[in-house]
Amino acid sequence: MRVFNFSAGPATLPQPVLEQVQRELLDWHGIGSSLIEVSHRGPHFSAVRDEAEARLRQLLAIPDDYAVLFLQGGATLQFAQVAMNLLRGGSADYIVTGAWSQKAYREALRLAPALGGKVRLAGSTEESGFTRAPRADELDLDPNASYVHVCTNETIHGVEWLDLDAIAATGVPIVADMSSHLLSRPIDVRQFGLIYAGAQKNVGPAGVTIVIVRRDLINDPWVGTPSVMQYAAQDANQSMLNTPPTFAIYVANLVFAWLEAQGGVAAIETVNRRKAEKLYAAIDALPLYENRVEVPWRSRMNVPFRLRDESLNERFLHESDAAGLKYLKGHKMVGGMRASIYNAMPEEGVDALVAFLHDFAARHTA
Amino acid sequence: MRVFNFSAGPATLPQPVLEQVQRELLDWHGIGSSLIEVSHRGPHFSAVRDEAEARLRQLLAIPDDYAVLFLQGGATLQFAQVAMNLLRGGSADYIVTGAWSQKAYREALRLAPALGGKVRLAGSTEESGFTRAPRADELDLDPNASYVHVCTNETIHGVEWLDLDAIAATGVPIVADMSSHLLSRPIDVRQFGLIYAGAQKNVGPAGVTIVIVRRDLINDPWVGTPSVMQYAAQDANQSMLNTPPTFAIYVANLVFAWLEAQGGVAAIETVNRRKAEKLYAAIDALPLYENRVEVPWRSRMNVPFRLRDESLNERFLHESDAAGLKYLKGHKMVGGMRASIYNAMPEEGVDALVAFLHDFAARHTA
Repeated sequence: MRVFNFSAGPATLPQPVLEQVQRELLDWHGIGSSLIEVSHRGPHFSAVRDEAEARLRQLLAIPDDYAVLFLQGGATLQFAQVAMNLLRGGSADYIVTGAWSQKAYREALRLAPALGGKVRLAGSTEESGFTRAPRADELDLDPNASYVHVCTNETIHGVEWLDLDAIAATGVPIVADMSSHLLSRPIDVRQFGLIYAGAQKNVGPAGVTIVIVRRDLINDPWVGTPSVMQYAAQDANQSMLNTPPTFAIYVANLVFAWLEAQGGVAAIETVNRRKAEKLYAAIDALPLYENRVEVPWRSRMNVPFRLRDESLNERFLHESDAAGLKYLKGHKMVGGMRASIYNAMPEEGVDALVAFLHDFAARHTA
Repeated sequence: MRVFNFSAGPATLPQPVLEQVQRELLDWHGIGSSLIEVSHRGPHFSAVRDEAEARLRQLLAIPDDYAVLFLQGGATLQFAQVAMNLLRGGSADYIVTGAWSQKAYREALRLAPALGGKVRLAGSTEESGFTRAPRADELDLDPNASYVHVCTNETIHGVEWLDLDAIAATGVPIVADMSSHLLSRPIDVRQFGLIYAGAQKNVGPAGVTIVIVRRDLINDPWVGTPSVMQYAAQDANQSMLNTPPTFAIYVANLVFAWLEAQGGVAAIETVNRRKAEKLYAAIDALPLYENRVEVPWRSRMNVPFRLRDESLNERFLHESDAAGLKYLKGHKMVGGMRASIYNAMPEEGVDALVAFLHDFAARHTA
């Protein structure tokens, strides 16, 4: 029996996708081998890779002057790779809104001297405890920066940006870590210079990293950039400068097809909005629970919450687990609970969690 | 029906492994989720990762002062990563015996100035057309080198080193790309400073890279090394500085268990030797076919061969394919044919190929 899996990532995948992978695992489309047993340069996998790129371009309306890359190393390698490819001896701005943008900032700060560039902190909401992103008037943006880096959805702190207009107005290319909300809603790709995302939330299994980048930005990587980390070289080689993570790309392609069948990102956004509203409504209505993120910044994907009586934490986790609501423990950095409700989390899963929140509160509130 | 798949990589996997993955895909060990849907830091995947490391240590008798890492990026990223971690402002020797060691050499040569070090060519058999590795008296080894790099099995040219004693005698740490023959035979890990291997030959699906490295060599990475590319940092974090490629590690663990069940690397070496001997015997016996690699250097894993009458190439590929002997086309760099006969290629597959070679030659030799 399948459970409701609220893991922040690697995360639940659409069941029809897993069923198709299962059916095809020993003999893909009658070729007598698994797709993961054949050359990435042969006709079978090449067709899948091309289909995955075409589907992603369609789903997000990605313009032709943007490259779509399927890379390795996760978002954390992108923290370095972005700087290696885009810093070009200049200065980059970083905005810190939670654990992940802070990691990106610190990695770039550490590497910048070796790359002959520099990195500035252009805004941070650390003082607030990361309960929101900075307002436009709190940002100190350099109009001559090589790029400005944001994490548009903070997986740990549950802070999501929905409006980057003030940043975009500077004309500086925006580099966005969208790992935990890519494909959860429509975006205007033209507003970004580069978008990256580890796959293991809304895209597919861990092991592939999506990069969407405006081609005019990638022609001058730092001279010491490893070949497979040069965006332009990967673009020229259909992301196959060396053997790509074929299983992860194959499954991502099936997830894209599943998302198309749901009606695409606009349709899934409607569902995601409803799921998030139901969950935040329960948290706000029940005095036992608390989410401190300011309402306009609350993530639709990652919903951290606390029990005001923390002595109930273990019981909450034990009972929710027994009810088939799995992996609700919050990240160790912030404690408490977290429900990640990505595209593949059925609305019934959120309904079951909401019912549990009510039931648990009724039984444990004086 | 499963075919005999001679792909050089991604390559055929043991059928019982694929069957187990298939059974477990929607519900791993009764947890109600796939293993690829749960956190890498949770108990389920952590146990699998630990088991994979323990099995690999046991299979190759890896000493405790060596780290065992499961990384991303393939051998090609290791070309850069080795230099970033081990060059330390010094000089490294490279021995070129085919396409892959040449790629490693060129990448290191390109990056060395940025890393503040240098790279030397300590030997090459390019003039021979890569039909062997250099003899000891042809090597120009620097006893003060930071390391000496070799590719112990050239997947494209079919050249395998079985004896590195002359190099080891210098005392310089040997760095070996073993991508296409790791686990095909016993090795003395102590003879190496660092061993790396892309998984997609004898280890598992593409997407994970094995690194086995003596811990005293990795404490001083170049200052600009990305965090996830620092061996010491990955070692301190059980290869989970960020989300690892969980599917590939999970399958690798099952391949290791399968290899244990075959009797381990000594037992599989006996089979591999027999498979290779049968295939080379047929190539040598039949005038239609030719393998130019000198006998002592012939790879047991990758067997390139040509038809002396190249006008028969298309017919050979068409008929072998129709006979269920798949992916025998040679790499475009060298042309002709190639049969990759990794651990998971059953001996029956080699027998079938040998029978086909005889049959095809009988029908097409004047």
